[in-house]
Amino acid sequence: MHIEQRLRETADRITVALDALLPRCSGPEQRLLSAMRYAALAGGRRVRPFLCLEAGHLFDADETTLLRVATAVECVHTYSLIHDDLPLMDDDDHRRGQPSVHRQFDEPTALLAGDALLAFAFEILADINTHPDPQMRCLLTTLLAKACGPMGLAAGQMLDMMGPEIGEDSAAVARMNRLKTGSLICFALEAGALAGAASEDARQSLNRFGHDLGLAFQLADDLMDRDGMEDELSRPERGRPQRPKVNYVTLFGEEGARARMLVLAAQAQRHLAIFGPKARLLREAVDFVLAGS
Amino acid sequence: MHIEQRLRETADRITVALDALLPRCSGPEQRLLSAMRYAALAGGRRVRPFLCLEAGHLFDADETTLLRVATAVECVHTYSLIHDDLPLMDDDDHRRGQPSVHRQFDEPTALLAGDALLAFAFEILADINTHPDPQMRCLLTTLLAKACGPMGLAAGQMLDMMGPEIGEDSAAVARMNRLKTGSLICFALEAGALAGAASEDARQSLNRFGHDLGLAFQLADDLMDRDGMEDELSRPERGRPQRPKVNYVTLFGEEGARARMLVLAAQAQRHLAIFGPKARLLREAVDFVLAGS
Repeated sequence: MHIEQRLRETADRITVALDALLPRCSGPEQRLLSAMRYAALAGGRRVRPFLCLEAGHLFDADETTLLRVATAVECVHTYSLIHDDLPLMDDDDHRRGQPSVHRQFDEPTALLAGDALLAFAFEILADINTHPDPQMRCLLTTLLAKACGPMGLAAGQMLDMMGPEIGEDSAAVARMNRLKTGSLICFALEAGALAGAASEDARQSLNRFGHDLGLAFQLADDLMDRDGMEDELSRPERGRPQRPKVNYVTLFGEEGARARMLVLAAQAQRHLAIFGPKARLLREAVDFVLAGS
Repeated sequence: MHIEQRLRETADRITVALDALLPRCSGPEQRLLSAMRYAALAGGRRVRPFLCLEAGHLFDADETTLLRVATAVECVHTYSLIHDDLPLMDDDDHRRGQPSVHRQFDEPTALLAGDALLAFAFEILADINTHPDPQMRCLLTTLLAKACGPMGLAAGQMLDMMGPEIGEDSAAVARMNRLKTGSLICFALEAGALAGAASEDARQSLNRFGHDLGLAFQLADDLMDRDGMEDELSRPERGRPQRPKVNYVTLFGEEGARARMLVLAAQAQRHLAIFGPKARLLREAVDFVLAGS
């Protein structure tokens, strides 16, 4: 199967699964649920769920488990985007081709929809339908909590907001990207492998793959942001000046950043060698998700 | 032991436990951890942890389990206060006798510290040190996720922000308060009971107790806010007008609200009858935490 088709199919499956899992109600708190659905069902490439599913497929993991874990990962990713877009953070009016949640609803609704999606991810993981063994569910819950908590995603976002204060060098940016982007990508891969009872060796290889892919992926993101910069600057309605950001593009320029991205991508793919032809989709996904940047 | 002393001792124990559990680090993301500690260690009455511990004591639950669960509950409560105080929500400059987190640090730090505390609560619960049985840890995780998710605390906050839009009647306010305040109070009690392997009957009685106590507690809070209203109105630096709020005080006036609070308190205490003298501290706590309003 061609990678592009597989990515599209996976994205559709995740949207269907989210639609089925996210709660509905008819009371006035429907506003909150509508905002959660608006953000979570808007599409997006669903890269993290894809990685979770394909990591699990390497070890013939149970498909229901994988799909639920992948859905939880996407809830966390969506929460982080909603909070990131708030005026007090990156102040973005658009996300995934539609108004961001605080523009479509309002700021309190966006804040609370993000909070609720984060909590909901744990509700999904701890549920018996995710895996019959409670030990496994606890392990997944622990790993996700660490991945998005004060030594994970949230710390990465903090460093991102601090800008030049964290230091303007390659090590500081790598650390920020590892936390901000790597944490959740590594969780997605690790969780897929765990669900398939992968060996310690296999998990370590996937972790190294996730580490390099995460850094490359963030570089791709930074390069795309740079391409969109003209757009940014031409928005006169923006009230607050953009905070100064530090990333590989500001450090090494576009060419330098792109070269680094390609090195990381090749390095990431080499970590998949031990899985042989079974890892073809994961290997091809690397180039595909980095393309366009 | 006198209830006042017990509440103070419990509050101190929770602060010590939070101090021990909350992570530290020396990197630039220390800013995030400092903000989490600033909010979580600031004191407060620790009513929810107290309820969790005392519910557990009714059934001789393991003390380590209770203390860790109580700490997780307080992390969630602290997260909700930090987000609540943000300018985009209730815009409060002070909390627990000190500047609120976004005033002491800044808004992005406050947002992320709240997010990280929410995730950290799940990290505490799912950890093997909380309870040796993973089934129990999954159950606690599920209950906490439901208590603070889109059908719990977050939904209650949403209704609170919507103000008169939810309907200006007793049923609408009761529903809001049940979600906003009752969810976490009921979780604290239920978790303590679960840790002590309480019977279904006992758990139901505690749940009814929590329901009535939660409503009474929110009434006490609304009455205190009313007392502080003059202060609110005299703050000229406040940029955004306070959102219109609907609560029992706006519906029934101060006298009516106080009368309702006392009825609920008495009703709450009656649900404890089946526990006999063992529930003395819980019974006395009701009057104590409602006093001052």
